Amino acid sequence: MCRWLAYSGSPILIQEALYEGPNSLVGQSLHSHLGAEPTNGDGFGVGWYGAPDTPGVFRSTEPAWNDSNLRELAGHISSPLFFTHIRAAIGSAVQQTNCHPFRHGRWLFMHNGYINGFATIKRDLVLAVDPSLYPEIRGQADTELLFFLALTLGLEDDPAAAVERAIGLVEAVAAHHGVPNPFQGTIATTDGETIWAFRYSSEKNSRSLFYTTDVPTLRTLYPTRQLFQEVSDNARLIVSEPLGDVAGVWNEVPESTYGIVGPDRAEIRPFEPKAPTTPVPVRA
Amino acid sequence: MCRWLAYSGSPILIQEALYEGPNSLVGQSLHSHLGAEPTNGDGFGVGWYGAPDTPGVFRSTEPAWNDSNLRELAGHISSPLFFTHIRAAIGSAVQQTNCHPFRHGRWLFMHNGYINGFATIKRDLVLAVDPSLYPEIRGQADTELLFFLALTLGLEDDPAAAVERAIGLVEAVAAHHGVPNPFQGTIATTDGETIWAFRYSSEKNSRSLFYTTDVPTLRTLYPTRQLFQEVSDNARLIVSEPLGDVAGVWNEVPESTYGIVGPDRAEIRPFEPKAPTTPVPVRA
Amino acid sequence: MCRWLAYSGSPILIQEALYEGPNSLVGQSLHSHLGAEPTNGDGFGVGWYGAPDTPGVFRSTEPAWNDSNLRELAGHISSPLFFTHIRAAIGSAVQQTNCHPFRHGRWLFMHNGYINGFATIKRDLVLAVDPSLYPEIRGQADTELLFFLALTLGLEDDPAAAVERAIGLVEAVAAHHGVPNPFQGTIATTDGETIWAFRYSSEKNSRSLFYTTDVPTLRTLYPTRQLFQEVSDNARLIVSEPLGDVAGVWNEVPESTYGIVGPDRAEIRPFEPKAPTTPVPVRA
Amino acid sequence: MCRWLAYSGSPILIQEALYEGPNSLVGQSLHSHLGAEPTNGDGFGVGWYGAPDTPGVFRSTEPAWNDSNLRELAGHISSPLFFTHIRAAIGSAVQQTNCHPFRHGRWLFMHNGYINGFATIKRDLVLAVDPSLYPEIRGQADTELLFFLALTLGLEDDPAAAVERAIGLVEAVAAHHGVPNPFQGTIATTDGETIWAFRYSSEKNSRSLFYTTDVPTLRTLYPTRQLFQEVSDNARLIVSEPLGDVAGVWNEVPESTYGIVGPDRAEIRPFEPKAPTTPVPVRA
Repeated sequence: MCRWLAYSGSPILIQEALYEGPNSLVGQSLHSHLGAEPTNGDGFGVGWYGAPDTPGVFRSTEPAWNDSNLRELAGHISSPLFFTHIRAAIGSAVQQTNCHPFRHGRWLFMHNGYINGFATIKRDLVLAVDPSLYPEIRGQADTELLFFLALTLGLEDDPAAAVERAIGLVEAVAAHHGVPNPFQGTIATTDGETIWAFRYSSEKNSRSLFYTTDVPTLRTLYPTRQLFQEVSDNARLIVSEPLGDVAGVWNEVPESTYGIVGPDRAEIRPFEPKAPTTPVPVRA
Repeated sequence: MCRWLAYSGSPILIQEALYEGPNSLVGQSLHSHLGAEPTNGDGFGVGWYGAPDTPGVFRSTEPAWNDSNLRELAGHISSPLFFTHIRAAIGSAVQQTNCHPFRHGRWLFMHNGYINGFATIKRDLVLAVDPSLYPEIRGQADTELLFFLALTLGLEDDPAAAVERAIGLVEAVAAHHGVPNPFQGTIATTDGETIWAFRYSSEKNSRSLFYTTDVPTLRTLYPTRQLFQEVSDNARLIVSEPLGDVAGVWNEVPESTYGIVGPDRAEIRPFEPKAPTTPVPVRA
Repeated sequence: MCRWLAYSGSPILIQEALYEGPNSLVGQSLHSHLGAEPTNGDGFGVGWYGAPDTPGVFRSTEPAWNDSNLRELAGHISSPLFFTHIRAAIGSAVQQTNCHPFRHGRWLFMHNGYINGFATIKRDLVLAVDPSLYPEIRGQADTELLFFLALTLGLEDDPAAAVERAIGLVEAVAAHHGVPNPFQGTIATTDGETIWAFRYSSEKNSRSLFYTTDVPTLRTLYPTRQLFQEVSDNARLIVSEPLGDVAGVWNEVPESTYGIVGPDRAEIRPFEPKAPTTPVPVRA
Repeated sequence: MCRWLAYSGSPILIQEALYEGPNSLVGQSLHSHLGAEPTNGDGFGVGWYGAPDTPGVFRSTEPAWNDSNLRELAGHISSPLFFTHIRAAIGSAVQQTNCHPFRHGRWLFMHNGYINGFATIKRDLVLAVDPSLYPEIRGQADTELLFFLALTLGLEDDPAAAVERAIGLVEAVAAHHGVPNPFQGTIATTDGETIWAFRYSSEKNSRSLFYTTDVPTLRTLYPTRQLFQEVSDNARLIVSEPLGDVAGVWNEVPESTYGIVGPDRAEIRPFEPKAPTTPVPVRA
């Protein structure tokens, strides 16, 4: 439904990732090539880490291409790890509380995709959220609920396992209600140090996900590109759609896998939802 | 938290009730005399009945005093029954989906007040909403949830009994969680023919509620007031705070009562919440 | 830059023109076929005539496809003459005061196109506005200024001549500054009785403009279409891009002409800008 | 009309000045004690200096007390020099382009007050703006025009003299049109190094302006206040209304004077508008 981007590396101005190049994320908000909807004009969000303990989050319901405040912030805030997201709403209201990324403590979470049959299965999913977390749900988006399910199921301790359990729960509840192909999309989450990026769909035909080649290789390939000279060796972009079509820069994350990107690691692992071991809390 | 107004009678331009006079509802949005908060700048809404089956609803998060669209609509839409509401948010986000009035089919619902300890008891109250109605909840406001509880408990068949049951349920769930004085406020609801307006608080110290003297008497008292000459004999305004301080116009709705105003009736009855007869669906 | 629609005839709900059909105006806001920009997401406006002396105007900076208030109004307001406009901004800010249609007294004015080199020639054009009208300019859009030039040059007395003089002035000032091809676009203006719709560009390669076949013919062609049965014989839509691709419905307004549509007339005449006879008030 | 605050000193989080204390600037947006209007809910703006050449500017039309994005930015951006402004509009539209502070290159400019009879004299004042600067005017606020007059009259070379000339020009044009008491208010402008803050009104009854006692004295007076221990010796706040009522902190800027605050200086000088020496460019 949407487009997103995650950066980890030495601090750069957010605008380097948002506005530079012909297929920049903001350019994609007007005409995406690979997205399911060509226009992503239903709001946007930026989450970034800096000196304070919790990340900053700036979200707006305006189209990203119009927003002068986004341009100002992106031009003045440098960060070693940030998420940006542009939204094409399908169903839930266009309001700040439905914009990604979502935040809980030091964690951010964003998604390109959907939960199928959400109106049918939402109530049962809400019941599965830890009651102590429940009051923190501020909007009505499927992604926010998925985030709180993952938090309930251990996101802060083992992010990959928690997302596997959360999507497994979605699939189990959906099966109970006869909803086919319940989950679709790519997800990114982070604690401010490491990024986990997932590509999965129940029908095994998932939305696209890409990551950049390592910086030393990029420097060799493109010795005149200044940004590649400036950023640290371990810098990475993870994106739902490539920014620019420079050969050798973008690598696709395979179907049903997830990537882990941190200061000292960058690896890809298989992803498999875990069905709940206890009975699903569906209503009779 | 808020200020509201309900009109029933021969069709008048909405602006007659919104902007006329020194203590008009929009004037109150800047400086209310009796409201708990002096400024009501966190959005507004108008719901009105016309030719279509369902009422129109116009809601915005801007302060009412600024909104040029509100001024245009109020100056061009005539209606025999309309609700207007200005909001001072206390807790829930300033977003259209939290603005009053709320609508379901031909019904409108609005509120000045709050559910105390809402974060604590919200989850149990959500569980009590009819699952078939649950997907229609669009925001996160306490009032919207109260509306859906009343719908679940029979609002469309017996509005007064349903509101008594809904507030009785709120009080029962609150008692279970040790939340004191759970309900406060005044409520208006309508099916487009009749208005029911409630004044109640668990602590029996409720926010104010007023209704106008009958029009024939007003015409005798104020023979030069053009609006009184124009509207029908059965026209009534019900408001959370008097508009203007004209002697003889405003009558207070007593504590723990509700009024019924329709084309052929205007009466006041006692209000008493009804505790649920079945066990409250609270979590263990 | 934009898309617009003008309706004259027996009263219809605005939604009939805005939302019905696969290529409705709101559908066009997401993906226009003939427009210069595929996405028109930078605000919209509706102007309509009803009982009050001046038309109502509802304008918003949100994308039209998102705006729930637009949907409510369009579903509740019937009008015998209305303008609707969706905007793709090119240069001026996305703010309500730059949204079309613009209003002065009983007149409305809207435009799809631009004044080339506007930053260069704006100051000289502003100087040509009648000083008594000048304080009414509320925004910074080229179209609003063109409207005030036309008002200065007699719009209320002879609309076609005034628009010819206004565009003639724009071309003269542009020539003085060496700005090529200064005017591009289609314009609609109305006094609430008659609509004047212009198609012209300095380079004689103007944006598209269409009007509907007369209703009696449409009824014969499409006997099962309910809307054609309901509207009056003299009903007309004028649009910047056809709504739907129904054969025989749409007729193109020729290059460098304008149409006049009123209760008793529908004709097309040649359009030719008139250069000012007095010296252009350009700065030294 | 408004409330504003300017900070210069060692970098602090913007929230320290915006949200801390019972009479913080955001608190004042809901109920100002000394302002001409009690509610300042018609937008706000923040301008701050950081690593980039030009200051960042974040402006919004929402009430400051509601804006979650403002809270995020204020909690994540540290700056050695920033302006914040909350607006109570009187006449011009509530839109981002009318929100303070205004920016040109490295300069910021904001104002609490008004130009009297602005609709009458605006056109003549616009004529006095340097034509090369004219296209940069984005809104319709009196303050933005005053800023461009000051830029035309040398703000970047001699700020105090340019503001004296700009207000002198306003007074001369107003006199020509018979407008009394044309200027009222307090102004702050900065190049990112030094702040100039003016208090003046044509009627010599100007809105209030205050600055803080020097930090070494404040540390002696309030040894337990952590903020006073953290900021540099030369830190200063300049405000339109004191934040909090701590004895010894706030000093009033006298009528018809201006202050200069920079890393190495803090002084107060007399202010006197300078009438234009050439004929005022008023229309016949």
